[in-house]
Amino acid sequence: MARPLVLHPDRLFPPGTGTRNLARRLYAAVEHLPIVSPHGHTDPQWFADDTPWANASALLITPDHYVFRMLYSQGIGLEELGIPRRDGTPSTADPRRIWRLFASNYELFRGTPSRLWLDHAFATVFGFTERLDADNADRYYDTITDALAKPEFRPRALFERFNIEVIATTEAPTDQLSHHRKIRESGWKGRVITAYRPDPCVDPEFEGFRANVQQLGTLTGENVLRWKGYLNAHRIRRDYFKTMGATSTDHGHPTARTFAFDATQCQRLLDRAMDGSITTDEAEAFRGQMLTEMARMSLDDGLVMQIHPGAYRNHNARVYADFGRDKGADIPARTDYVRALAPLLGEVGNDRRLSIILFTLDETTYARELAPLAGHYPVLKLGPPWWFHDSVEGMQRFFANVIETAGFYNTVGFNDDTRAFLSIPARHDVWRRIACRFLASLVMEHRLEEAEAHELAVDLAYGLAKKAYRL
Amino acid sequence: MARPLVLHPDRLFPPGTGTRNLARRLYAAVEHLPIVSPHGHTDPQWFADDTPWANASALLITPDHYVFRMLYSQGIGLEELGIPRRDGTPSTADPRRIWRLFASNYELFRGTPSRLWLDHAFATVFGFTERLDADNADRYYDTITDALAKPEFRPRALFERFNIEVIATTEAPTDQLSHHRKIRESGWKGRVITAYRPDPCVDPEFEGFRANVQQLGTLTGENVLRWKGYLNAHRIRRDYFKTMGATSTDHGHPTARTFAFDATQCQRLLDRAMDGSITTDEAEAFRGQMLTEMARMSLDDGLVMQIHPGAYRNHNARVYADFGRDKGADIPARTDYVRALAPLLGEVGNDRRLSIILFTLDETTYARELAPLAGHYPVLKLGPPWWFHDSVEGMQRFFANVIETAGFYNTVGFNDDTRAFLSIPARHDVWRRIACRFLASLVMEHRLEEAEAHELAVDLAYGLAKKAYRL
Amino acid sequence: MARPLVLHPDRLFPPGTGTRNLARRLYAAVEHLPIVSPHGHTDPQWFADDTPWANASALLITPDHYVFRMLYSQGIGLEELGIPRRDGTPSTADPRRIWRLFASNYELFRGTPSRLWLDHAFATVFGFTERLDADNADRYYDTITDALAKPEFRPRALFERFNIEVIATTEAPTDQLSHHRKIRESGWKGRVITAYRPDPCVDPEFEGFRANVQQLGTLTGENVLRWKGYLNAHRIRRDYFKTMGATSTDHGHPTARTFAFDATQCQRLLDRAMDGSITTDEAEAFRGQMLTEMARMSLDDGLVMQIHPGAYRNHNARVYADFGRDKGADIPARTDYVRALAPLLGEVGNDRRLSIILFTLDETTYARELAPLAGHYPVLKLGPPWWFHDSVEGMQRFFANVIETAGFYNTVGFNDDTRAFLSIPARHDVWRRIACRFLASLVMEHRLEEAEAHELAVDLAYGLAKKAYRL
Repeated sequence: MARPLVLHPDRLFPPGTGTRNLARRLYAAVEHLPIVSPHGHTDPQWFADDTPWANASALLITPDHYVFRMLYSQGIGLEELGIPRRDGTPSTADPRRIWRLFASNYELFRGTPSRLWLDHAFATVFGFTERLDADNADRYYDTITDALAKPEFRPRALFERFNIEVIATTEAPTDQLSHHRKIRESGWKGRVITAYRPDPCVDPEFEGFRANVQQLGTLTGENVLRWKGYLNAHRIRRDYFKTMGATSTDHGHPTARTFAFDATQCQRLLDRAMDGSITTDEAEAFRGQMLTEMARMSLDDGLVMQIHPGAYRNHNARVYADFGRDKGADIPARTDYVRALAPLLGEVGNDRRLSIILFTLDETTYARELAPLAGHYPVLKLGPPWWFHDSVEGMQRFFANVIETAGFYNTVGFNDDTRAFLSIPARHDVWRRIACRFLASLVMEHRLEEAEAHELAVDLAYGLAKKAYRL
Repeated sequence: MARPLVLHPDRLFPPGTGTRNLARRLYAAVEHLPIVSPHGHTDPQWFADDTPWANASALLITPDHYVFRMLYSQGIGLEELGIPRRDGTPSTADPRRIWRLFASNYELFRGTPSRLWLDHAFATVFGFTERLDADNADRYYDTITDALAKPEFRPRALFERFNIEVIATTEAPTDQLSHHRKIRESGWKGRVITAYRPDPCVDPEFEGFRANVQQLGTLTGENVLRWKGYLNAHRIRRDYFKTMGATSTDHGHPTARTFAFDATQCQRLLDRAMDGSITTDEAEAFRGQMLTEMARMSLDDGLVMQIHPGAYRNHNARVYADFGRDKGADIPARTDYVRALAPLLGEVGNDRRLSIILFTLDETTYARELAPLAGHYPVLKLGPPWWFHDSVEGMQRFFANVIETAGFYNTVGFNDDTRAFLSIPARHDVWRRIACRFLASLVMEHRLEEAEAHELAVDLAYGLAKKAYRL
Repeated sequence: MARPLVLHPDRLFPPGTGTRNLARRLYAAVEHLPIVSPHGHTDPQWFADDTPWANASALLITPDHYVFRMLYSQGIGLEELGIPRRDGTPSTADPRRIWRLFASNYELFRGTPSRLWLDHAFATVFGFTERLDADNADRYYDTITDALAKPEFRPRALFERFNIEVIATTEAPTDQLSHHRKIRESGWKGRVITAYRPDPCVDPEFEGFRANVQQLGTLTGENVLRWKGYLNAHRIRRDYFKTMGATSTDHGHPTARTFAFDATQCQRLLDRAMDGSITTDEAEAFRGQMLTEMARMSLDDGLVMQIHPGAYRNHNARVYADFGRDKGADIPARTDYVRALAPLLGEVGNDRRLSIILFTLDETTYARELAPLAGHYPVLKLGPPWWFHDSVEGMQRFFANVIETAGFYNTVGFNDDTRAFLSIPARHDVWRRIACRFLASLVMEHRLEEAEAHELAVDLAYGLAKKAYRL
């Protein structure tokens, strides 16, 4: 009864013969280009220790909030899926039972990107030729779990097999980057670099903010209670991150608001952040001021700045209390860029040394705000569709809404932004296919020449990311 | 000179041969499924009394604000269309003249859903083969008016002819549901059920709110001036509505805001609502608190909750003063769900017994807010495109924006939400065609197998609505 | 190495044979219709003096902020492009070097409307058959510059060659309209009319507002410090503009907010505007009140009212300080119409003598707010996609989002709104092609008959604009 699992060579291309043939030709030239993954959340320990993943569920379900949020939305408990409780109560869920639960609900993923990514991994990494269902759940589980024990399925081997030229992880300022150091000292040639994500030390509402800042002081020897010392501490850590390959910083704020206060105001905000008396509005001001400060530091040290605003984090208070962050309960909210970015851009918006890559979870800003901003300011570029919008339809909306005003060269190609390692080749493949599809449509409508489309296909798949992230 | 009226069998399918053929195959399997209409505004008296409609205009124009708003927008007075004045001044408009006016302006509807629905009714219900125009207006009028006098065009006969398995109407808490009772006692087999729409008794800004609540107290014997008694009164009426088949409640608030106040605060709001001193903000708080209360009651009595927020009602003050509510002057406004629903979801968002169906008039929330919310919270599901978006393009936007993040199984199929009885088969037909079109595209792009598309086509046309509304 | 420049006859039509053939047939009937350009920003002096343009750069680059903003966004200085500084420092940039810079970066425009418009002008006006690039930059420059010196490339000759039936420019109330007078007195038959754009005299935040109002008083002999005199002054100038052909007014406010204050409140706002003490909120109130006043004046004098809200002007403070207005740094912002327009519509929304054309830079309002408003209020109509959205994708979004609710007849055809004279035929051509494409799709999906599509194609290309603007 099992249905065949086939990755059709024309998947994601439009049905019309002319466009499909052209998309195919464009794609053939970029399909095998190396993967440049300039921003994501894979665990550097995988590549440092190269320990095998334990089993199919531990690899594909438990760490992937795209997967378990969907199961949760249909009434399956997070405990049943082995998600660890915050209080340390061990998950008693048996990994095989987790897998069966997942397999018997696999139809929930119809029409979603997770289905495309999982099927891609099932077929290309593990060689399955039958679609996952309740009946073959155990066979899937055993095949994957057995494979993971083999050398060719260890993290470094898969990294090489996936043809990853470079991958960036994301670490907090207080991270010692010991995994990155170990990778570098190991002699392995895989290029794994870090990125500077200061949220835990610049967001007064982040769990443990004050302890984080104190630790930042300890690490750097700076007096982080003084504004100047606090900024210096960041500068020192940024420099250290650069020694571990960092070419970028990353900022995940609730909004895109920025500020340009004077030093006295900044010291006052820092005081209130550190004595715990800071209000919600002041916390927003503190974060926004730090975006401007980080932009200034980038002028000096050349790190490319990424801004990922607009997620309402931990929307489900109960799930947050029981299971903690990143459990599929972050919800996008309306995001303004025009007024929000004005203070920062007023300070550094015309300085060609700086490069700021903007992302959004609010697609209404593509044509209305982001493309006009990036189509004017020398410092701005636009990141690819992100998170919920890293999808077939999301990418098509991105291209249709952004390119006419921003052009192709104010965009930065693709990044996968994922913690699900096996989804990386699939995500880049979807991007390459949709980029080629979009280019093919432009050519078919005589808005672009085919030779130009070929150049752009390579840029979108590979060149723009490398250049934008200074890799 | 009359143009032929033809309902092409391939209408609303895309032109490419492959996709069209597949859409056709999918549609063939769902075209004749019974209609499940779980939410709408048809008049139960039609089915209780089974009285013939008086004439073509009284059936198709005067009660349909989709139709007369368009004529009004082009300078035709509501009086000329027979819309009754609020002060009781009788409409002097002759129904035949109304019809002629409509017919001679029929080109205004080009490209609109109304045109699709009207043509569908003209062709399938009355057998017309010429398109309506100024020349054949009288022939149309006579044919329809004559037909309506016949037994087979009475409400119950049409109900059966339309193959309606179940239809829900919508009534206020103070409604005695005498029409529903009459239907049940009549022995007629048509399943017409009610739904609990408490707006007139939970919205302090609703016309007659205080009298409505007093009446609620009289009906239930509860002291509705005390918060506890007021809530009890709702519980009693909900139970009564259940005896008349209700499986759902419906809430048409200006926003989606919810609150979770304590009993003292609630009593204070009720006091101010009932002594008329309530402010705009407090009225919003009252409504929002009642959404949370209604969700709690649903935990107990199992009624599915529908939230229809975001209409700025009676935008045209002059039209409202002269003609009253529902005159085509309700305008959608920007609607937030993320912050608005947090209080309610904080109370009951993880309780699997509860089911809340969200609708929107703000399509920007599909991908940004609603799909991520429904793709996480066990209690949430997404209603189909609503009102202005119940259209060919609106449905396509819905599918393209919702499914990738929410999946198919967090949606609830279709409901027509109409007071225009003859548009019901047409609306469901449009939905079925567009659903099949969307599924066919997924298959053609190898994002779904054809066998899966067949299952989903049936779910979208029939199964999901039945299950989601607990019918 | 140069690539051929070919304007494919099927450009912008979709690839499927059936739809393409039909789009072609529809387009064939409208391709050569005269251009009605009821709103734009061309310089009347061109047509008054009929002086040749100086060179290729002065014609195509320096005045076109669509072009130089893109170059600026990629790190090319505005000085290098010959944009004059505000302080009068002459641009030292050599026009030929400007052209070379532009040509060697022409790939930046891939996928943008500017590329379509420029290629259209290169091919149809100057006869180029090679695509512009770094190698042929000089040949392009010389060919264009030489041509411009010839009589047949002078403004009036091009006006006639472009088959422009009428074009409207836009002038401030204090403009003497001497160019328009000169055109009229010249005996030349080209119809160039003005439009009343009172922003400099109704926006207290406009540079020089007080001086502008004083000048308005001088010109009209009214006491503009009294509310009544101030309004009278506008009336007098509107009448004068009508003698120079004006059929419309135009209002470019930051928002769409309107107000309906009493005379005392109005006088107080005027006092504060004129003594310079006005706050930001009061300035908004003043502008919004003036929209209502202008609507009332339109009831008397019949001028059609255009509202173009939603641009955050001069977002880049540095560019504004150095180079002034209209330098590609205006960014669209979220715009509300529902609450914003309620006061004005409450006053005059049902008066059939009045016609107000709404534009937007916020596409989310198309389906949500604008189409429902225009589909109800007799005074409202919807302008075509504007500015950043005057594009292939923008037009398709406009049609897909607006027509189902507003119908075709609550729209007004096309206007180019441009100061780039050579882009006018190209912009109208894009509109005509996309309109035919949209109509062809409706026919192919059996939502419209081909005969209806033919009528609508002519309306959209020509008739609706003429009628809506009372030309």
